[in-house]
Amino acid sequence: MEQMDRMTDSVELIDFSANINPLGLPEGVKEAIRNSVDQFGIYPDPYCRKLTSALSQREGVPEEWILCGNGAADLIYRCVYALKPRKAVVLAPTFAEYEEALNMVSCQVVHYELQEKTGFQVEDGLLEILEEDLDIVFLCNPNNPTGQLIPKEFLSAVLQRCKALGIQLFVDECFNEFLDDPARYSVKEYLEEYDNLIILKAFTKIYAMAGIRLGHCITSNLALIKGIADTGQPWSVSAPAQIAGVRALEEQEYLTAARELIQQEREYLVSALRELGIAVISANANYIFMKSPELEPEPLHERLFKKGILIRNCENYHGLGPGYYRICIKQHGENVTLISALRAIVC
Amino acid sequence: MEQMDRMTDSVELIDFSANINPLGLPEGVKEAIRNSVDQFGIYPDPYCRKLTSALSQREGVPEEWILCGNGAADLIYRCVYALKPRKAVVLAPTFAEYEEALNMVSCQVVHYELQEKTGFQVEDGLLEILEEDLDIVFLCNPNNPTGQLIPKEFLSAVLQRCKALGIQLFVDECFNEFLDDPARYSVKEYLEEYDNLIILKAFTKIYAMAGIRLGHCITSNLALIKGIADTGQPWSVSAPAQIAGVRALEEQEYLTAARELIQQEREYLVSALRELGIAVISANANYIFMKSPELEPEPLHERLFKKGILIRNCENYHGLGPGYYRICIKQHGENVTLISALRAIVC
Repeated sequence: MEQMDRMTDSVELIDFSANINPLGLPEGVKEAIRNSVDQFGIYPDPYCRKLTSALSQREGVPEEWILCGNGAADLIYRCVYALKPRKAVVLAPTFAEYEEALNMVSCQVVHYELQEKTGFQVEDGLLEILEEDLDIVFLCNPNNPTGQLIPKEFLSAVLQRCKALGIQLFVDECFNEFLDDPARYSVKEYLEEYDNLIILKAFTKIYAMAGIRLGHCITSNLALIKGIADTGQPWSVSAPAQIAGVRALEEQEYLTAARELIQQEREYLVSALRELGIAVISANANYIFMKSPELEPEPLHERLFKKGILIRNCENYHGLGPGYYRICIKQHGENVTLISALRAIVC
Repeated sequence: MEQMDRMTDSVELIDFSANINPLGLPEGVKEAIRNSVDQFGIYPDPYCRKLTSALSQREGVPEEWILCGNGAADLIYRCVYALKPRKAVVLAPTFAEYEEALNMVSCQVVHYELQEKTGFQVEDGLLEILEEDLDIVFLCNPNNPTGQLIPKEFLSAVLQRCKALGIQLFVDECFNEFLDDPARYSVKEYLEEYDNLIILKAFTKIYAMAGIRLGHCITSNLALIKGIADTGQPWSVSAPAQIAGVRALEEQEYLTAARELIQQEREYLVSALRELGIAVISANANYIFMKSPELEPEPLHERLFKKGILIRNCENYHGLGPGYYRICIKQHGENVTLISALRAIVC
C-alpha cells in the first residue's frame, strides 16, 4: 500500500511491482466496455448469469460451482466471513490478504514457514501440522511472492488429509494461467471428489483487468457457494466487470501471445539478473522472486525508485527480510530499462 | 431478487421497480468512462483520493470522514462486520440489507414496526425502545419502501439518546438528494458533534450509476472509518467507479433537471393514481409507496407484468402484505404508459 501511494502520485514510474499481464487490457475488452456504457445505469445481474455460463464452459465445471466476486481479494474475505474459521494454516511468506481476512473473524493463524535454505518450497512438514482442530488451510500456487510451485501430487495428499480431518482447503490459483503448463498445477480435477476444496481465480492478473475488479471461486460444495454469496450485497460484481469478463474469455490469442511473451522475457530477465549477481529464487509465472546483494547505505528498491522504477520490496513479509524483491515480467523494452538501471546500480 | 430475475430475462419490460434517477446515467459520466478505459488495466487507487477530495468539497466534510465502497450496500455489510453488534433496532418495513447484514454476525434484531394506521411514520415509540443493551440503530430517511420522512428534530433527539446510551446510529440517506429540499432532512450537520452517527449515501440512485457500484459513508469517528476499511480488500472501489464518481459530482445541471422532472412527474402520478382509486401513502422522493384495491384472482403486479410493466411488490416486507407496491418516478412517457395500463386494469 505504501508503494502504491507513491506509484499513483507519479505517472512517470515504470511499475514492476504489480503482477499484471504485460500485454495490458485486451483491446476487445476495452471495446466491449466502451460499447456497453449505456447499460451501466441499471443494476447488474446479481447472478452474473452470462459470465458464469461462459466461465462454466471455460473451466469445465458446472455453473453452480462458480461464484464471481468484486476481484479475487473480495472472495477471500467473503469466504472467511462465510466459514468463520477459528484456526487456520497460512504459508509465510504469502499474499497478505488471507491473514488480514482471518484477523477480521479473530481466527488463530498458524504459519507454515517456508525456508530460505530449502528454496521456499512447501514440504512434508505441512502435512504434519494438519490436525483436527484446524478449520482451514490457505495455499497459493504458485505462491506469491516466492513464486514456488506446489506439485499436484503433494496437493492431493494435503486434500486427502484435510478431508479426513474436516479441514477446508483454499487454493489460490490466481497466477496459475501464467505458468507454462497451467493444467499441470491446477487442482481443478479434484473439485468433484473433494467438497472441502475451494479454488480462487482472478481476471485481474491474466487479463490485466485490475482496475475493473473481477475474480471467481469454484467449489463443488454448494452450501459454501450460497454461504459466500450471503456474506455481502447481491450486486457486488459491477456491470463493467461482467461485460469485460465475458469478452475476456474469448481472448484465446491474447492468452497465447501473453504466455509466449512471458516465457521469452522471463528467460531474458533471469539470465540478465544472474549475470548481475542477483540471486533468482524462482521464476515460474509472470513474476520473479529474487534476492539482491546488500547495498549500503541505500537499498536496491530506493535506488531504482530514484531512476523511476518501482519494484516490490518484500522485506515486510513474514519470514523474509531486507534484500528480497519481487518483480513482474513486462514488455521487452521495459525489461531492458530495468536491467540497465540495475547494472548501473550493482556494477 | 426474484423480480430482478424476470427483469433481466426480458429487455422489453418497463422497469418501475428500481429507484433510479429517471434521466439515466449522465452523458458526461458515460464519456468519462469511455475516455478512461485505457486506465482500467492497473489497480484502482485504494484510497480513492481524487473522488474523496471531490466528495469532501461537495459534502462539506473533511476527507478523513469519508469512506467509499462498492455501492452503498457494500458499506452496510462492512459497517456491520466492523462493529459486530449483538443487538440492533431496524425499522419494519425497510430496506432488507440491514437485517441481512446483521444476520451475518448473528446479531439480535428488534423491529420498530411502522404502523399503517399512523401512515408508517416513525414516532416517539422509537425513543422508548432505545436501551443500553442496544449496539446500533438503522434508520433510512426517506425510508425505503414506505417513503416516509423522519423530521430532523426527531433525529436529533434519537442521536442524543443514542449517544448517552453508547448506541451507534446508522442513517441511510441514499434517497435524500431526490427530496425537494435535501438539506432539511439530512443529519450531516450533526456529524461533528456526534461521533456515534454514520451516514450512508449512494451514487447508484441519484446519478443512475447502479451498474457501476459506488456509495460512501460519512462519520467523524475515524476509528470506525479505519475499522470499516479493514473489513475488506483495499481495492473494493473499481477504477470505472472512481472516474464516474468524480465526473458525476460535476453534474449540477443534471441534478437540477432531475429534481424538476421528479417534482413534476410526482405530481402527475400522485393525482392520476388517486383518481384511479389507488391509495398513495407517500411520495417524497423519486418513488411512490401505494396500496392498490384487492384484485381477484390476479394481483396488480401480475396484471401489469403481463402488460410489460414491472413494479415493486412489497408484500414480502416485514410488516406489509398484499396490495402494497412501490413505483419509481420515470420520464413522462413511461409514467403515462403506467397510468394507462393501471386504468385498463382497475377501471
